[in-house]
Amino acid sequence: MEVDEVVCLPRLSRVAVCGGTHGNELSGVYLVRELLKVKKGVMEKEEEQEEEEPLSVLKVLSNPRAMQQCRRYVDTDLNRCFTHIVSLSPSGLTSGTVPYEMIRSRELNAMLGPKGRSGAVDLVCDLHNTTANMGLCLIAYSDCDWICLHIFRHLQRKMPDIPMRYIHFEVSNKESYSLDSVGKHGFAMEIGPQPHGVARSTVYTAMKAGVQHMLDWVCFFNSGTLFEGESVDVFTMIKHIDYPRDSETRNITAAVHPHLQDRDFCPLHPEDPLFQTFSGETLRYKGNEPLYPFFINECAYYEKGIALSLARKRRNQL
Amino acid sequence: MEVDEVVCLPRLSRVAVCGGTHGNELSGVYLVRELLKVKKGVMEKEEEQEEEEPLSVLKVLSNPRAMQQCRRYVDTDLNRCFTHIVSLSPSGLTSGTVPYEMIRSRELNAMLGPKGRSGAVDLVCDLHNTTANMGLCLIAYSDCDWICLHIFRHLQRKMPDIPMRYIHFEVSNKESYSLDSVGKHGFAMEIGPQPHGVARSTVYTAMKAGVQHMLDWVCFFNSGTLFEGESVDVFTMIKHIDYPRDSETRNITAAVHPHLQDRDFCPLHPEDPLFQTFSGETLRYKGNEPLYPFFINECAYYEKGIALSLARKRRNQL
Repeated sequence: MEVDEVVCLPRLSRVAVCGGTHGNELSGVYLVRELLKVKKGVMEKEEEQEEEEPLSVLKVLSNPRAMQQCRRYVDTDLNRCFTHIVSLSPSGLTSGTVPYEMIRSRELNAMLGPKGRSGAVDLVCDLHNTTANMGLCLIAYSDCDWICLHIFRHLQRKMPDIPMRYIHFEVSNKESYSLDSVGKHGFAMEIGPQPHGVARSTVYTAMKAGVQHMLDWVCFFNSGTLFEGESVDVFTMIKHIDYPRDSETRNITAAVHPHLQDRDFCPLHPEDPLFQTFSGETLRYKGNEPLYPFFINECAYYEKGIALSLARKRRNQL
Repeated sequence: MEVDEVVCLPRLSRVAVCGGTHGNELSGVYLVRELLKVKKGVMEKEEEQEEEEPLSVLKVLSNPRAMQQCRRYVDTDLNRCFTHIVSLSPSGLTSGTVPYEMIRSRELNAMLGPKGRSGAVDLVCDLHNTTANMGLCLIAYSDCDWICLHIFRHLQRKMPDIPMRYIHFEVSNKESYSLDSVGKHGFAMEIGPQPHGVARSTVYTAMKAGVQHMLDWVCFFNSGTLFEGESVDVFTMIKHIDYPRDSETRNITAAVHPHLQDRDFCPLHPEDPLFQTFSGETLRYKGNEPLYPFFINECAYYEKGIALSLARKRRNQL
């Protein structure tokens, strides 16, 4: 009988749960507001146990100004502001022309980071919604972060009715751009479909349960529980595909094909329908290998030139 | 055998098809852009026939500045600007502080109206999307406009797979506020569900078919076709219900209940679940008669204080 090696990791003392990084993704906004109300409730029952060092859960509303306007951002996408956060000099940010989100990203880095330093929180869970039919996804920069992958497996087991995937964006720690990159470990919890600016009760409830199970797992982990090795399917992002556009106006000239719409994580094969033009023509996928589409027709990505992303699936052994 | 009275109405010479009245409702934006490309295509084949006076179809992008920003509006909701459009003096609108949409509404009134005058276009079809699960709805200020009701019946017959309803907002012509009120006849064609800022191919295709069938009907009508009397179910709006809100912050404290979400036009009975609070409590409908909910959880109505609207259903004889 083969005996697996035992991995020992330091406990997670400080966890941040962030909502409203995009001000119109409402599940996270309302969930964090709710958590802020509950000082000593179900979400932090571990504090009442006899532990040497209780778990500290920071609840953060990341972009209050965008939330107030119910927009993704005010000046620039906050969740793309954390790449060179360390190297920014304070003097460069005092001018009135600095985008609000650049200033806010520094505040968040001071609160939850500094990114890449020992003082950073142990884990950042940043809450997001998508208009794509993606179920619940954890999105992380690593495909072998033991903490993130085990949390994912715990959520999968605890919420069997929710389609759940682990997405890996292969970006070095230096180039990582999102709020969750500020923590020692971190991921985005992305749930859809939900229109931006709308709160759907089932999506809110799934996010609430996901956060609760995540915190529960951290408590198990901190109490010294031994977790069995297991396998996780990881979807690694390979490339983005933009909409067909008019060469002059840059307006889109087609929508995602009805056969592809809402089929996130179903394999897309060469010659499968990809777009339907506004005049009725079908455009097909010209790649040379089947890949897994996700973020299909995500509202916020029209401006980024992304109609869908494509991933390769691999089974990772923990 | 009873013989119905024959109603004779003047021909419809000028029809306006408007999109982008709300800049982030994309089906109408892309459909009108497409129609503007097709100078002599399928949409206007009637022009090629030997008629004394060919049908004139005006295709209008109502709010270009909001479209460019992919927002509902820039300064104020354009589709609420047409109430007192006639009485506005030109001098009052030259100041830089005048909301963009007030200026644009005057331009549109000059183009399609003047509202309430003989020079106005015969019919305005204004294209909209909703995040609510409403299928295709015609929304009009009259429950007995012969033209609008017959167009509705024609669309119902031609598009049997699309759930279709006729909604009546009981507002006098004087108080009517929307762009479609500028024409001699007019309605909004509202299709959902679709997130704002997103184009779904099936929704676009349904809208394109709806507009085509509407124009076809106008041609039948103009050619002297006799239409049989028939009956139409009309949903008359009775009242709006707001979300439960925090008395201090005015933030919403509940989402539409999962049992009600997406059940537009299914009867809501006293004591049926209405909302689910963010702490998990169910709030029930306290009305004393069953009514028909619609615009359930429409994104744009959070700011208007409308979680859903309620209608009474009645069968109208044409």
